[in-house]
Amino acid sequence: MTPEFAQRMAGVRPSAIGELLALGAEPSIISFGGGYPDAALFPTDRLEAVFRDAIRTPGGAALQYAPSDGLPRLRMQIAALMTADGTPCTGDDVLILQGAQQGLDLAARMLVDPGDVIVTEDPTFLGALIAFEASQPAYAVVPMDAEGMQTDRLAEVLARTPRARMIYTVPDFQNPTGVTLSLARRHALIALANRHDLIVLEDTPYRHIRFSGAPLPTLKSLDTEGRVIHLGSLSKVLVPALRIGWAVAAPALLARMGLLKVAADTQTSTLNMTAASLFLDRHDLMSHVAGLRAAYARKRDAMLVAIRRHFPQDIHVTEPEGGLFTWATFAPGFDATAFMRDVALPQARVAYVPGASFFPQSPRPNHARFNFSARSEADIHTGIAALGRALHAHRFP
Amino acid sequence: MTPEFAQRMAGVRPSAIGELLALGAEPSIISFGGGYPDAALFPTDRLEAVFRDAIRTPGGAALQYAPSDGLPRLRMQIAALMTADGTPCTGDDVLILQGAQQGLDLAARMLVDPGDVIVTEDPTFLGALIAFEASQPAYAVVPMDAEGMQTDRLAEVLARTPRARMIYTVPDFQNPTGVTLSLARRHALIALANRHDLIVLEDTPYRHIRFSGAPLPTLKSLDTEGRVIHLGSLSKVLVPALRIGWAVAAPALLARMGLLKVAADTQTSTLNMTAASLFLDRHDLMSHVAGLRAAYARKRDAMLVAIRRHFPQDIHVTEPEGGLFTWATFAPGFDATAFMRDVALPQARVAYVPGASFFPQSPRPNHARFNFSARSEADIHTGIAALGRALHAHRFP
Repeated sequence: MTPEFAQRMAGVRPSAIGELLALGAEPSIISFGGGYPDAALFPTDRLEAVFRDAIRTPGGAALQYAPSDGLPRLRMQIAALMTADGTPCTGDDVLILQGAQQGLDLAARMLVDPGDVIVTEDPTFLGALIAFEASQPAYAVVPMDAEGMQTDRLAEVLARTPRARMIYTVPDFQNPTGVTLSLARRHALIALANRHDLIVLEDTPYRHIRFSGAPLPTLKSLDTEGRVIHLGSLSKVLVPALRIGWAVAAPALLARMGLLKVAADTQTSTLNMTAASLFLDRHDLMSHVAGLRAAYARKRDAMLVAIRRHFPQDIHVTEPEGGLFTWATFAPGFDATAFMRDVALPQARVAYVPGASFFPQSPRPNHARFNFSARSEADIHTGIAALGRALHAHRFP
Repeated sequence: MTPEFAQRMAGVRPSAIGELLALGAEPSIISFGGGYPDAALFPTDRLEAVFRDAIRTPGGAALQYAPSDGLPRLRMQIAALMTADGTPCTGDDVLILQGAQQGLDLAARMLVDPGDVIVTEDPTFLGALIAFEASQPAYAVVPMDAEGMQTDRLAEVLARTPRARMIYTVPDFQNPTGVTLSLARRHALIALANRHDLIVLEDTPYRHIRFSGAPLPTLKSLDTEGRVIHLGSLSKVLVPALRIGWAVAAPALLARMGLLKVAADTQTSTLNMTAASLFLDRHDLMSHVAGLRAAYARKRDAMLVAIRRHFPQDIHVTEPEGGLFTWATFAPGFDATAFMRDVALPQARVAYVPGASFFPQSPRPNHARFNFSARSEADIHTGIAALGRALHAHRFP
């Protein structure tokens, strides 16, 4: 048979860069492509202990089904982390998710009718676009600068976008740019959401990976009208393999996300939730994160130093105060996808993510995202130097 | 704010029986409500060993991100289990899911436009109705008897249902009735799907929990035109907490389910997939299942014996050849929901699932689902006896 698919599948397509990124997984390639944390920093011994004890929970409770909203104790612990971070809440305000990615899917399904508009940063997180697509949204985009989403431009966009339903933002060390939304713009964004009666979807996977500067308040903590759905995750601060994320939102929103969560997959793994809860009982997560911050700061420095030394001078890169990524802007006319396919992969043996996929509407070819968390400082030097030689050769062949 | 929700949320409502079932979770209540496996039969030592070794995988690979379709080795192992069960396939034909529940959600999203018809058994699995609802289907229902879905009635239903898209069935030890679809009807169902160009969604969580009789071929193994999406799960044969299920389907279907899987939650837990894979490497899953079959057969016998002894004679129950459930039919006019609220819970201290929720269109109040896998044989005797006394007292007060 040739199956007929539902209309909502029209926009659900393989990522254009999937094949290219698959090439980057070859061991002989130094890849700055993924958004991976450094596996050398995983707290393996501690995880072994909490999984052993979780599996041994009397009555086998950690191996059985559990409440679909998440283990009550873990929800309380997440609420305590959020409260310590300046966003007071209780366990009842927390819904455990299968990674924050699930929150992107559920929020769009809950709020977006076909043709409703999601407003995003330009560029924005590719995984969010992938999650939103099955809800058949339209997009409106807001340019960024060194202070993040330009809220004066956001005001213009909202004035001409009556079907806007939701603003999606990664305010801290954004994916892909590494840029952080300034305090003044956080206030401006909330004021605009209030004025236009919009939901704000705040995605914060990198928030605690800050190298310098003072933490800025979450949008959720500035939310006066229950409009912000805050998404958090243990993937970057503990390990990705747990697939534990969460949403914090007003009760009417959280209850409906909870209904969609049961429908989508019944629950997140009881064992992973139990082990995460034991880890948070026994260890100070923020002490562990302090170690990650120091290590990733060194890697960021290594990458920025190498780029300054090896790349042609007219290539601009962001200088992120945290997170996993820096974002390169090449000269107009440069095609980062073609360069990766024709030069970077086959000659320099280096991978990055070409920037075009991160633009919801008008892909700009002269950008690339570089991850600095996953590889060693030695690999960063070697890879960036090789790429720099290729870039110079490409300009002056 | 008072949020406006997307139209697809209209049918996404809290389960009518949620509150009642929550009462059944009180420790002083003997609950036959849940669909839980017996935690006393979990292979705790073996799981502890495979999780320890998975966490110690060189390079931290089991704690890192993994391919969204699932670990290749686990996909091969699942394909080997399917092949041994008479449904030949390869790892490429397998998509790892967050429990089979995720397959219900993704299949409906992939195939069902608002108003398209999903054909189900009547009654059918409540969790499937919950999963389907956000795709805004209509339903057509087919009555059951001791051989499962009545395929002559299915033919009539399909003849008058031009928008039918998909037949959903639990062919083995159905939830909630415990009934198995006969071989002749399996062939008839496939022939009807071919004639009407429909997808068949085959959900098999209990398939290997057979107490007597010979296994019947999966619908997938009888599928001549690539119409069957087969869903399987480790929840009932290993532990629910892993949240590992899978789909086996034709490439065009599986590829799109895979795209929706990435969008929905990126991937299933790498650690749980790695541990499951190690378990399948080291142990014969079907030997473990043989132990479950023997234990659950004794519990089924205990429940049927107790029901015959203690219930009024006009209450009919199914005699399942496997699975976790039997299904009671009370006299016309009996309201199993009201009886649970007013008598069973407060007086007999016993819970079951009132049957009304399992009917997609016209709830019939005189049914109840009883689970026999979760409680001890002693609890089964005590609980069924108490409920029997309450039922007699209710008839002859």
